[in-house]
Amino acid sequence: MSIEKFFSPESIAVVGASRTTGKVGNTVVKNLKDSFQGKIFPVNPKADKVAGLKCFESLKDIGEVPEGVVVAVPAKIANKVVKTCVDMEVPAVTLLTSGYGETGEKGEELQKELEETIKGSETRLIGPNCLGIWDGRNGMDTMFLPGYKLETPPEGNIAVISQSGAVGSALLDIAAHRKIGISKFVSYGNQLDVSETDLLEFLGDDDDTDAIAVYMEGVKNSRNFLEKAGKVTQDTPVVVLKAGKTEEGSKAAVSHTGSMAGNYQVYQGAFRQKNVVEARDSGELFDLVKTLAKEETPDGRKVGIVTNGGGFGVLATDQVSKTELELAEFSEKTREKLEDKMKSYGTVSNPLDVIGDAGPEMYREALEAFKKDPEIDMILCIVLMQTGTMRSEVVEILEDTDRTTEKPVVGCMMGGDYTKLHTDYLEEKGVPMFHRPENAVKALESLREYGDR
Amino acid sequence: MSIEKFFSPESIAVVGASRTTGKVGNTVVKNLKDSFQGKIFPVNPKADKVAGLKCFESLKDIGEVPEGVVVAVPAKIANKVVKTCVDMEVPAVTLLTSGYGETGEKGEELQKELEETIKGSETRLIGPNCLGIWDGRNGMDTMFLPGYKLETPPEGNIAVISQSGAVGSALLDIAAHRKIGISKFVSYGNQLDVSETDLLEFLGDDDDTDAIAVYMEGVKNSRNFLEKAGKVTQDTPVVVLKAGKTEEGSKAAVSHTGSMAGNYQVYQGAFRQKNVVEARDSGELFDLVKTLAKEETPDGRKVGIVTNGGGFGVLATDQVSKTELELAEFSEKTREKLEDKMKSYGTVSNPLDVIGDAGPEMYREALEAFKKDPEIDMILCIVLMQTGTMRSEVVEILEDTDRTTEKPVVGCMMGGDYTKLHTDYLEEKGVPMFHRPENAVKALESLREYGDR
Repeated sequence: MSIEKFFSPESIAVVGASRTTGKVGNTVVKNLKDSFQGKIFPVNPKADKVAGLKCFESLKDIGEVPEGVVVAVPAKIANKVVKTCVDMEVPAVTLLTSGYGETGEKGEELQKELEETIKGSETRLIGPNCLGIWDGRNGMDTMFLPGYKLETPPEGNIAVISQSGAVGSALLDIAAHRKIGISKFVSYGNQLDVSETDLLEFLGDDDDTDAIAVYMEGVKNSRNFLEKAGKVTQDTPVVVLKAGKTEEGSKAAVSHTGSMAGNYQVYQGAFRQKNVVEARDSGELFDLVKTLAKEETPDGRKVGIVTNGGGFGVLATDQVSKTELELAEFSEKTREKLEDKMKSYGTVSNPLDVIGDAGPEMYREALEAFKKDPEIDMILCIVLMQTGTMRSEVVEILEDTDRTTEKPVVGCMMGGDYTKLHTDYLEEKGVPMFHRPENAVKALESLREYGDR
Repeated sequence: MSIEKFFSPESIAVVGASRTTGKVGNTVVKNLKDSFQGKIFPVNPKADKVAGLKCFESLKDIGEVPEGVVVAVPAKIANKVVKTCVDMEVPAVTLLTSGYGETGEKGEELQKELEETIKGSETRLIGPNCLGIWDGRNGMDTMFLPGYKLETPPEGNIAVISQSGAVGSALLDIAAHRKIGISKFVSYGNQLDVSETDLLEFLGDDDDTDAIAVYMEGVKNSRNFLEKAGKVTQDTPVVVLKAGKTEEGSKAAVSHTGSMAGNYQVYQGAFRQKNVVEARDSGELFDLVKTLAKEETPDGRKVGIVTNGGGFGVLATDQVSKTELELAEFSEKTREKLEDKMKSYGTVSNPLDVIGDAGPEMYREALEAFKKDPEIDMILCIVLMQTGTMRSEVVEILEDTDRTTEKPVVGCMMGGDYTKLHTDYLEEKGVPMFHRPENAVKALESLREYGDR
């Protein structure tokens, strides 16, 4: 069975719908009512209405089979509800409840029972122990976090899937804060049925998704992952943040999602073989995935750098030397053109230091030359917005550069609120933006790496 | 001669004072007029007034010897102005002008000439090719960046010195954005006279400064640095971001501040020997220095971690395993107390996962136990603020914990604006805050490292 119904059901029932503010079953119904386009059926034998919607005594009382069911009742009852869903042939069950495989023996038993219920049925299940699904385009939202505590990310082309609900929701909030557009989000928890590999396959085929970010502790079925991951990454870059890399981290993962994090070296080998890009820490995850989602892979490994702050150029160069990237040697034509424009500035070299009194015009000259230079495969544009002569128009020049070349273009600006205004604009316009030169270079390296394999 | 007069002169002259908005000599006079407590003498033979202040034809016309002179005229004229300062025995000259050693042969000649002028005199000089000084307490400010483009950091106990003006000003802006308190700031450029070592010595003795952050390309005099750095770091932690680590980065540094970045291995050895903490990239600089400025060094290497998001615990544990830190084994007493409080949550282990429905009360219990547990040397408190049951009061509990124990306490919260409200509050109250668990652990490791040497 496909898992499409999880994202775009025509109707959805919420078992455990509640009238009490703050309860999971209350938040979910309210969130759905605010955004979901299809029919919503709250289920609670003790209530007439929840959030103004007519409430049903049980799933069977609804009178039709909902395409999706969200379950938010304690584990023991939840198992019975899932049994009913299987009997009714509900296509998509999202089980939010925790207290299963992640909590020791008793939970493991409940999880096994659930597995038996699902096996061979027409019903697919996401969870348990998860936040479920968020899809901004059709308003599907099973997350039970109060809206005033986290922001909603803009619509975009990056899908995020996370084994951890906490990490997942923080990622969604960070994406919103940094104006990174998200297509779909899934917190998949203990992956009793629907696994990370199922989600990767589905999202790899999703028209709205151009790259996938994954927080993963352990894969459900390594053979299945190895069989299918390579096919997904042929067209859709996948960036994984693997947690539980060390023996101690691995132990912590067991008591978290009940999954064996396994031997990290094996994972690394598999990722490399299947062209899955690895983020080394939680900071890198979005840096890499947004660049892979927005930019083409480069034709070579030579970077051209322009900056109005020499120190940033030095930091970027250090980072280039730590990767397989190279600093481009400008072509004769570029050199001549820039020497003409920068008469008083000393020698033209890469990084091109247009120094502190440059304005947007100098950036236009440099970026035009970089675009045309066959010696340059990708472009890193660093701007210190705080100088007296820099003006906001520089963002348009950078935006236009990105629109008019196949070469990857990334930007870097360091600073506070004034700077963030400009990076936010560019991020939304499709230019991957960074606050540290080192991170911008790491992102370019991940593009090269992905393209080279 | 001491360099104190750079920071707290009683009077200051600005040579190259200008009436034209946007010019360096205009911005400096306006900034000083807004904040500086002492007398200000603009110098410009062609103007009567600058920014409403009486203007003088030349330094000699002022009628007294100013304690500080800021020079913002082109290099050739600047050399003559400095000669006059030496003749008048001005104690502190800040030379903002660029076009010296960083720009090739002609500039090098000018720089040599300047060196001859200064040698053996009573005059000390900061620069050339720099932004000079910012001292929030007395309003000293020679930076020529428009105030609306960057924020002013809060008063605090961290000094920042930077060979690069661009990196320095971005750091100041970032500090403001992240509510990191700054005591003094110096952009020292080509360090013709006053070197990074002079500044470290001075700031090491400064009552307002508890830790020093340095952006450095190359030291001026390695023997002098080796002789004195160890003495500074005995009482005042110093964190260095060394740029020009690689051959190519080193080349870029030469054309930037005219300094030889030198062999990185030699630097690393010297830093280790003198207990200078190294930041691996620009992101780490503040993470480490703010922790060293705010927290005591730990008595051991055992970390206690509490979190309401299991995934964050796994990420933190992975990072702990990459360092010399260890996960604490809770004492029997802690274990018993927490088992009692967390009855339904499964086993008590480190990281302590109080799971997604914990409120501030559970954090109070955990942190109280951690404080008293002799097996725990330092505390990492991770809070996902976005959950339904978490409340803002948790920041008070964290603040109180930090105030009532000698053990290092750091916090970590991941998210957007709502989360930042809480991290900003805690940062200002003296708790080092992080947005990624990995970074929080790295900061604890730097505390251990600094304390162990």
